[in-house]
Amino acid sequence: MGSSKPTIVVDAMGGDFAPANEVAGSILGLQESQNAFSIVLVGKEEEIQKHLRGAEIAGLPISVVNAPEVITMEDSPTAALKQKKDSSLAVGMNLHKEGKADAFVSAGNTGAVLSASTLILGRVKGVSRPTIGAFFPTEKGVCLLVDAGTNVDCRPQHLYEFAVMGSIYAKKIFKYDNPLVGLLNVGEEESKGNEVVRDAYKLLKASRLNFAGNVEGRDVLTGRIQVVVCDGFVGNAILKFAESVPSFLKARLKSYAEKNILRKGMLGLVRGTLKAVFKEMDYEEYGGVPVLGVNGVSIIGHGTSTPKAIKNMILKAAELATADINKHIEQTLADSVTHRALAGDTISMPAHP
Amino acid sequence: MGSSKPTIVVDAMGGDFAPANEVAGSILGLQESQNAFSIVLVGKEEEIQKHLRGAEIAGLPISVVNAPEVITMEDSPTAALKQKKDSSLAVGMNLHKEGKADAFVSAGNTGAVLSASTLILGRVKGVSRPTIGAFFPTEKGVCLLVDAGTNVDCRPQHLYEFAVMGSIYAKKIFKYDNPLVGLLNVGEEESKGNEVVRDAYKLLKASRLNFAGNVEGRDVLTGRIQVVVCDGFVGNAILKFAESVPSFLKARLKSYAEKNILRKGMLGLVRGTLKAVFKEMDYEEYGGVPVLGVNGVSIIGHGTSTPKAIKNMILKAAELATADINKHIEQTLADSVTHRALAGDTISMPAHP
Repeated sequence: MGSSKPTIVVDAMGGDFAPANEVAGSILGLQESQNAFSIVLVGKEEEIQKHLRGAEIAGLPISVVNAPEVITMEDSPTAALKQKKDSSLAVGMNLHKEGKADAFVSAGNTGAVLSASTLILGRVKGVSRPTIGAFFPTEKGVCLLVDAGTNVDCRPQHLYEFAVMGSIYAKKIFKYDNPLVGLLNVGEEESKGNEVVRDAYKLLKASRLNFAGNVEGRDVLTGRIQVVVCDGFVGNAILKFAESVPSFLKARLKSYAEKNILRKGMLGLVRGTLKAVFKEMDYEEYGGVPVLGVNGVSIIGHGTSTPKAIKNMILKAAELATADINKHIEQTLADSVTHRALAGDTISMPAHP
Repeated sequence: MGSSKPTIVVDAMGGDFAPANEVAGSILGLQESQNAFSIVLVGKEEEIQKHLRGAEIAGLPISVVNAPEVITMEDSPTAALKQKKDSSLAVGMNLHKEGKADAFVSAGNTGAVLSASTLILGRVKGVSRPTIGAFFPTEKGVCLLVDAGTNVDCRPQHLYEFAVMGSIYAKKIFKYDNPLVGLLNVGEEESKGNEVVRDAYKLLKASRLNFAGNVEGRDVLTGRIQVVVCDGFVGNAILKFAESVPSFLKARLKSYAEKNILRKGMLGLVRGTLKAVFKEMDYEEYGGVPVLGVNGVSIIGHGTSTPKAIKNMILKAAELATADINKHIEQTLADSVTHRALAGDTISMPAHP
């Protein structure tokens, strides 16, 4: 920190193919960016060095910090953090916390990375609950669905904060001028939904966000809305459902083709095309998802992240490290408190997060 | 009633193409079933007769009951029922209530049909809240997602009742021997989710249903689970999202193909195949969705229902009219109260629905 080039901590023990993919992805990231940042690989030093020795890393700003413990995908997030203080996750996140790095990247246990981000880095002022969103490719551009599973029970204020964080992210990272924010509901009318959503509607309507009103599940993929806000229970259901569509289509295509020989001949072609289309919108391209609302930059990736996916996570982290998103979130939330006080808004803020 | 052949009331003014499609669908239904039931078309008599005069209906057991008022798609469900007592919906549902018909079918205003079903027919004993599910084609067979938008706020007991109704429907109509019931959640562990879902888990685990435990959004389309239970907020989000997938894929295919001439040549073929695959799982084939938990048989269809869709709704209604599903629902819910009392279950029943 302080230097113009950011330093990125990579949790070398995070993913299912750690540390091989973490090392390979780090090297790819440095090569592609022409050393626009430096990388600290955190984890079992010997294992990491073994992989580095086999690679061409001469001249690359890459270093290793030893962390002998590993948090696995099966570990309970909060327990693991307490018990494994020498894990790559804890050691790496603390490097970021202490200012020795500007961002943190992991393909490890999502719950544990989220906990570590919140507990070690702390929350941005004004944020009740940090959140993780999901990116959906749409008919045109990207849609950020937030929350995607982090907070299963939400109050109106939480949904409002998700909208603020999502909107700033969409603006700064996706470069949308004035992202359109929709509140996920069962219909478009203001009176629809449950009490939480109706109150969230009021908060969003009174805010300075570019609020599109209520939207429905069908609006996620159209590209009309850039940020769709919902609680993590609903967001997770949609995300998981969406992830199952390619394999469903593959199976339906197969059974369709089996009904006659002509169709069978076309099956390979149709499948190949669909596969290519889905490939275009693969998670690898998105470079993981950020934990929004924590004091720092923390990116979480899929456990199965390939070197390419790790590389994209690192590039995203480097971008976020210089984008100052958290300052904007803090400022916007502070402004909205003033704005509401002036407007005499009657919806109370949560007493505790 | 009393005779061996059921009588089906068709709301002739319900859908967007009423009464043309309703009349045509009724005739198709009688022809296909070889007059296995009789049909009463309810609505503006003159308009209906005009359509009947143009058709070949000699020998078909079809009659008309006049109802001069029409509930439109824009009408508020409860207000419309109070104000339009001579609507085809109110008159037709009352014919069913009075035992002059054994089932009711409408492609009209979903909210109004649901209200009329609940208010006029009444609830099955033991059912707190009637519900509407949605059918999803899967990799293998059909999955019933229940609730699909009717009840946006649910208590554990409501989710339990949805599971009972869905399970009986899947058994009697889809002919699944022992339908596997999953509780939609954000993860498979018993501890996952919010309080409502965790308590619903306990109810389901202690029940005699074939309970698969928690399932995720990705399990809807696999075919592994036959009944997925969730509140109507989540169910509606998934349903609407799913409905948007075909148009999303069409758009992505187009943009994929535009990138080179070879791909462009294949576009028609790939699209045609996908269209055929989606056609296989079209709503037309499912014959509408039943209102579960009301004292009678009430089937709701899409506003845009074609004659074929109306026909399938009528065939479904005739099947339901003889399936005695409500008796099974009542019996199962009564049994579960006894079962729980014996087991000393501590989860309380709702004081009021």
